[in-house]
Amino acid sequence: MMSKDWIDRDVARVWHGFTQMATYADNEPVIVERAEGHYLIGTDGRRYLDAISSLWVTTLGHRVPELDAALIEQLGRVAHSTLLGNGSKVVIEFAEALGEVVPIPDPHFMFASDGAAAVEQALKIAFQYWTNQGVRGRTSYLAFGGAYHGDTVGSLSLGADGFGSAIFDPLRFPVLRAPGFDASDCMAIAADMIRTDSERLAAVVVEPYVQGAAGVKIHDPAGFKVLQQACDETGVLLICDEVATGFGRTGTMFASQRCELTPDIMTLGKGITGGYLPMSVTVSNRKVHDAFLGEDLSEKTLYHGHSYGGNALAAAIALRHLRLLSEWSVLDNVAKRSAQLQQLLSEKVSLLSIVRDVRVAGLMCGVELEEKHKRGRRVCATAVRSGVLLRPLGDVIVIVPLLTSTEEEIETIVDVLADAISQEEGH
Amino acid sequence: MMSKDWIDRDVARVWHGFTQMATYADNEPVIVERAEGHYLIGTDGRRYLDAISSLWVTTLGHRVPELDAALIEQLGRVAHSTLLGNGSKVVIEFAEALGEVVPIPDPHFMFASDGAAAVEQALKIAFQYWTNQGVRGRTSYLAFGGAYHGDTVGSLSLGADGFGSAIFDPLRFPVLRAPGFDASDCMAIAADMIRTDSERLAAVVVEPYVQGAAGVKIHDPAGFKVLQQACDETGVLLICDEVATGFGRTGTMFASQRCELTPDIMTLGKGITGGYLPMSVTVSNRKVHDAFLGEDLSEKTLYHGHSYGGNALAAAIALRHLRLLSEWSVLDNVAKRSAQLQQLLSEKVSLLSIVRDVRVAGLMCGVELEEKHKRGRRVCATAVRSGVLLRPLGDVIVIVPLLTSTEEEIETIVDVLADAISQEEGH
Repeated sequence: MMSKDWIDRDVARVWHGFTQMATYADNEPVIVERAEGHYLIGTDGRRYLDAISSLWVTTLGHRVPELDAALIEQLGRVAHSTLLGNGSKVVIEFAEALGEVVPIPDPHFMFASDGAAAVEQALKIAFQYWTNQGVRGRTSYLAFGGAYHGDTVGSLSLGADGFGSAIFDPLRFPVLRAPGFDASDCMAIAADMIRTDSERLAAVVVEPYVQGAAGVKIHDPAGFKVLQQACDETGVLLICDEVATGFGRTGTMFASQRCELTPDIMTLGKGITGGYLPMSVTVSNRKVHDAFLGEDLSEKTLYHGHSYGGNALAAAIALRHLRLLSEWSVLDNVAKRSAQLQQLLSEKVSLLSIVRDVRVAGLMCGVELEEKHKRGRRVCATAVRSGVLLRPLGDVIVIVPLLTSTEEEIETIVDVLADAISQEEGH
Repeated sequence: MMSKDWIDRDVARVWHGFTQMATYADNEPVIVERAEGHYLIGTDGRRYLDAISSLWVTTLGHRVPELDAALIEQLGRVAHSTLLGNGSKVVIEFAEALGEVVPIPDPHFMFASDGAAAVEQALKIAFQYWTNQGVRGRTSYLAFGGAYHGDTVGSLSLGADGFGSAIFDPLRFPVLRAPGFDASDCMAIAADMIRTDSERLAAVVVEPYVQGAAGVKIHDPAGFKVLQQACDETGVLLICDEVATGFGRTGTMFASQRCELTPDIMTLGKGITGGYLPMSVTVSNRKVHDAFLGEDLSEKTLYHGHSYGGNALAAAIALRHLRLLSEWSVLDNVAKRSAQLQQLLSEKVSLLSIVRDVRVAGLMCGVELEEKHKRGRRVCATAVRSGVLLRPLGDVIVIVPLLTSTEEEIETIVDVLADAISQEEGH
């Protein structure tokens, strides 16, 4: 009742992303008022186990005392000061700490807030890397079928045609498109395309290991080596988009590591602040960074920067979060819970008649159902009514549990999902 | 000494936007460690009066007890939960409050974090507004010379060729370009172009009243009416980009109000959280919003959304900030300090031999100097050494004081600037 009122107020003013607002209220949204640990609590007072990590961003849970303390401590210093031409102590400290763990030697970090903005920075850096060296014609990119890199025009151009983005073709720049991860030989084909067209290519852009938004499409990590080789041979820059996969989500700190990739440029976001505050970053190796060095105010400079890039509050949270990932051995828990999730899904979900495929990469998981109108929607709604917050990507139920999920919570998620799918079987 | 160490550590890891990193250290950056009210304090222990509002974002000052309290209170509820398909109580409350003050009746708010992302949302919304109605060919935009709308590929396409962005032409989509605000008849010409090319135009995009990044170029507010008329006649959507001008910066709550514009779509950012946390928003009127209503999962949906859009911590700050603007009668102070700034600049700065022009819009001000290599850089460096943080836009010294600046602080800023320019005169 109380929640209904909030839903009406919501619909009257808020336009939700990736959401059809005409049917938003009918789809029984949860209006979150507060949280406790692994649970979100709605304005109706009901508790929901967060099984989507508030859309792939929350890592350690909500209201983590250590993160709260770090935020309050930084608030006592300064909330924000610009990084344009000036520096910020806590940002330097975070960049140094992050530099210790990213799979890029001698990395340089350019901060933004939206993940898509980090991708835009990556593609512009790769482009200008060539023009700064007087190389002409390296103005295109190779990207993959099924790829998703964000919704701004540049990142949407790199992405494939998911979510009906083809309607924006008049705005998108064209890219070379390799097959998606559905094709087992997509990496070999991509490597061939890189060699054939290297003179046109500024960079290749890939989601290492998992194409998340495509519905958790997983590619054999061993297969990425040919991509690295083709880039090494031709000089085409390798951009790994780890906005979704970074910070332990798929089992290793970064998915590039599992794929034995050493990107020239990398994009990070989502989990970077443990799901507390907007922050994203573009990581460049020394070679790329140094191609922009020149005279003051010269054309070699990257004239790109977001006002809130390097926000001090976000950096303080991100720094504490990075240390907690290690102090709490979070990756060990991801490994255990991932194995458990896989086991339970194969026992309780895989054999259900309308389940087409189950894919697990760390604690990112896709349960693909036989296609039927609004089937994913109905299954998730049933789960939400049972107190487990899930959200579909079309016919794929995406399970993205918190990295600190307990054994019992994983059991609950699978049980509730199995039950929800069973109810749908008779539909 | 201590600061030198921090600068070295900064250069080793952080890539600053709009900054030539080879000369960053030579330009004596301030490495901010903490703040007190209107002052930023460096790692060297020195205090700097913030005369750039940490790049046009800070409004009421740093470490505002009321904003700190609002942040801590929300932290005790929840830091973040996704807006994709679900809601957030504090976001609804902020959207309702913001809805009371924006110059758009019955507004709908789509949140993001970077200002450029809000512009990308605006341009995609305007584009799909037409395709959703089955109208073909309305795929272009009219924008102005000197315009700056952000650095992502879409927003960079709308922007003119400032900051050498023409090198990215192979990635940018073309737009129709009206003259910049330097031309007094730019609005009349733009209106003619809209009428001539309306069948090709999805929208016209304009920075109302002031083109900030162009060097604080001001246009007579009365002149914007013809733009509105041309849009009304042709149906071309009017997008007002108020990322820089919103929340009292130029004297009215929104610059659109001074120009008597009623935009169909509006973008906000920077001052929205008082300079504390990343947040941006795209505001659409009812007509635009309703063009996206349709069946669940249908093509009419806007498939665009950023993970951290509608962050609860940012929304809580933004809500308290909006109320403080009113409780503290901040606009009254802006009016007084703007008049004082204008007066003092005309007394102490305008007549200096190397000053070409002085432009003041509320508390956004540009002092244009006669061109000379690195002149703007030198003048600002002198001011910084005197304890006033300034940053140039080429040969334009941009003064963007806090909206709560005191009479004494405005005097200090002008005195220090006048002294710095005088020193440069002999250079």
